[in-house]
Amino acid sequence: MPDHKMPPTLRFMLAARRCELHGLESLSVTCELVTRISQLVHQLQKERGYSNVYLGNRTDHYLHQLDAHSAGSAAVEREVHDCFLSMDTAQANAADRARLFNRIAYVLHGLEELPGLRRRIRERQLSPRQATQAFTRLIGGLLAVVFEAADTAADPSITRVLVALFNFMQGKELAGQERAAGVEGFSRGHFDDELQARLLHLQEGQERCVDIFGEFADAEANALWQQILDTDTVAQVISLRGVAKRTSAIAQVDPGLCELWFDLNTRRIDAMKQVESHLTQCLLERCRRSIAEAHADLDNHRALLGRVAQMDAGSDQALLFSVHSSTLDVPPQDAVGNHLARSVLDLLHEQNQRLQQVSDELQETRETLNERKLIERAKKLLMTDYGLSEDAAYARLRQSAMERSMRLVDVAQSLLSFAARKAQEKPRSDKGKRI
Amino acid sequence: MPDHKMPPTLRFMLAARRCELHGLESLSVTCELVTRISQLVHQLQKERGYSNVYLGNRTDHYLHQLDAHSAGSAAVEREVHDCFLSMDTAQANAADRARLFNRIAYVLHGLEELPGLRRRIRERQLSPRQATQAFTRLIGGLLAVVFEAADTAADPSITRVLVALFNFMQGKELAGQERAAGVEGFSRGHFDDELQARLLHLQEGQERCVDIFGEFADAEANALWQQILDTDTVAQVISLRGVAKRTSAIAQVDPGLCELWFDLNTRRIDAMKQVESHLTQCLLERCRRSIAEAHADLDNHRALLGRVAQMDAGSDQALLFSVHSSTLDVPPQDAVGNHLARSVLDLLHEQNQRLQQVSDELQETRETLNERKLIERAKKLLMTDYGLSEDAAYARLRQSAMERSMRLVDVAQSLLSFAARKAQEKPRSDKGKRI
Repeated sequence: MPDHKMPPTLRFMLAARRCELHGLESLSVTCELVTRISQLVHQLQKERGYSNVYLGNRTDHYLHQLDAHSAGSAAVEREVHDCFLSMDTAQANAADRARLFNRIAYVLHGLEELPGLRRRIRERQLSPRQATQAFTRLIGGLLAVVFEAADTAADPSITRVLVALFNFMQGKELAGQERAAGVEGFSRGHFDDELQARLLHLQEGQERCVDIFGEFADAEANALWQQILDTDTVAQVISLRGVAKRTSAIAQVDPGLCELWFDLNTRRIDAMKQVESHLTQCLLERCRRSIAEAHADLDNHRALLGRVAQMDAGSDQALLFSVHSSTLDVPPQDAVGNHLARSVLDLLHEQNQRLQQVSDELQETRETLNERKLIERAKKLLMTDYGLSEDAAYARLRQSAMERSMRLVDVAQSLLSFAARKAQEKPRSDKGKRI
Repeated sequence: MPDHKMPPTLRFMLAARRCELHGLESLSVTCELVTRISQLVHQLQKERGYSNVYLGNRTDHYLHQLDAHSAGSAAVEREVHDCFLSMDTAQANAADRARLFNRIAYVLHGLEELPGLRRRIRERQLSPRQATQAFTRLIGGLLAVVFEAADTAADPSITRVLVALFNFMQGKELAGQERAAGVEGFSRGHFDDELQARLLHLQEGQERCVDIFGEFADAEANALWQQILDTDTVAQVISLRGVAKRTSAIAQVDPGLCELWFDLNTRRIDAMKQVESHLTQCLLERCRRSIAEAHADLDNHRALLGRVAQMDAGSDQALLFSVHSSTLDVPPQDAVGNHLARSVLDLLHEQNQRLQQVSDELQETRETLNERKLIERAKKLLMTDYGLSEDAAYARLRQSAMERSMRLVDVAQSLLSFAARKAQEKPRSDKGKRI
């Protein structure tokens, strides 16, 4: 029996299943995209690193490596670009795709700028910091696409992997920024207060990110990460962090440490990419599995409901939904009919409970993303209302959390609630008068 | 220039706008449905009330009125049914429609049972409580559709009205259940402990619902509600609540009060319907306005981006996204081209900020819905783990909140977190070993 000929109740039950399947199919395209974005971000991080050392060095010592990394980025860039263009923007009709598409537009815009950026780096028209900022902005845009993918995914098991992946990517990006900040300080021979604060901020950020990653990733990803933490590379990075911390204008170190710092961090970041690759494989694997399950469920469901609908059509009275069998606990009068009616009602309840559970799990998993949004919003509020820099706004939140022994997110929440109450005071009193 | 011929960045910017518009159009269909559901719930509440008094009375005194109300329900039922069938289930591909469609399947199933239920009531095969429960289940299913509509709406101004409406409908439904519980007690001459607890639970529930309604509804709806609170009817209901509270097996009252209680509450509930009608009008008005705005925005956007794309195509180099103008604060080299490039980048940022704000506002507005879900989940946990009834589970949560001077939702949250931690302890230790 074709779906549209089914009785309405059964049709809506099937439509609910079909929506889940379509949602998964579209999520799977997004996950493919995320996988390629992870590659591109890694390439751009390398290109940023070598642009940085190329610009910091007066000779063309690093030009060859830089060119190789630019070519590497460009190849992955085309893949990501094709992936964007293959997305079915015309069919999409869900409001939450709007955010994803807008993030993609931002990235496409950034990609268009890359050739010009590369030229200007080679012409040494930019300072290392300017070049770093331009790459960082584009990488930030790419991470925002991954964030939206995680925030709109509707399958809890996939959302968990996306949350782990987003946080790990974010942590790795902060590691890349730490590498750049370290290059700046070591090549100068010391770290001033601003650069020290920046390093600390980047290190704490990495910790928060990998904590969340650890909570949501599977045992294998956690084990891979533990292996990296146990390497000599990481031990040496930590020891150089200590060196950086002890420097000052009157206690300088050999600028030669710059190269060691850069190499160690590059090795650390490359190792992190392995964890990321494991996560993207998990992601695609989960998508395939969930889609296969949803297909099989839909087919079973359709077959079962088709049999019910045929029995129902052949019967004189509505066997299917007779009040006797299903709601009022009266002994069944027709064994077969009532057996089916029972099983349809069971299916309906089961589907409902499952969807409810999916929604609860999503809610919980997205909680960490929401916390992130709250902290970002509180930071923005401090930046606009008090004219603070991003680092200073974050430091203010952090200090306030430490003083009151509260979690960062709770401080952010109470700051936002306070601002919202203040903003509402005026209209509320007006409303009071009108009542 | 047709959308698909635009440069990719512009195409994704337009796609984002189009998604918003499509989301609104589909939301508007849901809102029409919600409006009719509000009518149907009101009719079913009347029919439930008269079924109740008909079954409680040994004569056919109320049969005529009951028949009239059943006919009234049946007419609105057909409208709701048609509304369901006109929904485009085949086109929907968003995963969050699954919950809505499943709720609708549940309601359709309930509607199929209504003729049988009506027959059995007239044949006096059910007790008043059984009949009440059957109607209450269907009304609960209809309210769940409104809840899903509120929870998946993606326009904050519409979500606010839906949250106000859902809570008001829920409050009105609890008033209907209070009327039924009162009829049961007054006709018996007194209220035993269980019925007293039930009345209290229903009264507190109404208060919580109208509090949330008051927070989200506009001034006019609040004023209408205030007018109702000031009527003699409400004063008399409150005084009868006091009478009910003072009854016991040894302090009975005249069962004649039953009719007075029923009439007063019926008047109260009918008056509440006016507030609901105001809210549904607001809802449809808001939908129309938001859709008109989104249409106009999309047209403007398309025209502007079309002009930009044409300039870009006619130019030798990519004026539009040259790195000079947009990211690196270098003085513009081409006044016209750069002016447009700036404005595209501005549009992109603006759209991004707007979408972010929409998402933040939705988050805040849905907070009350999430709180409701948390309380429901905690209640269910107590019911399954401790074998409590729904009322007892709620009473337990409430007492715990009072003892610890916490909000109900925070008690629910900590109970759920505790249960989640306990459930995770086992797998966590396994995972520890594997690492």
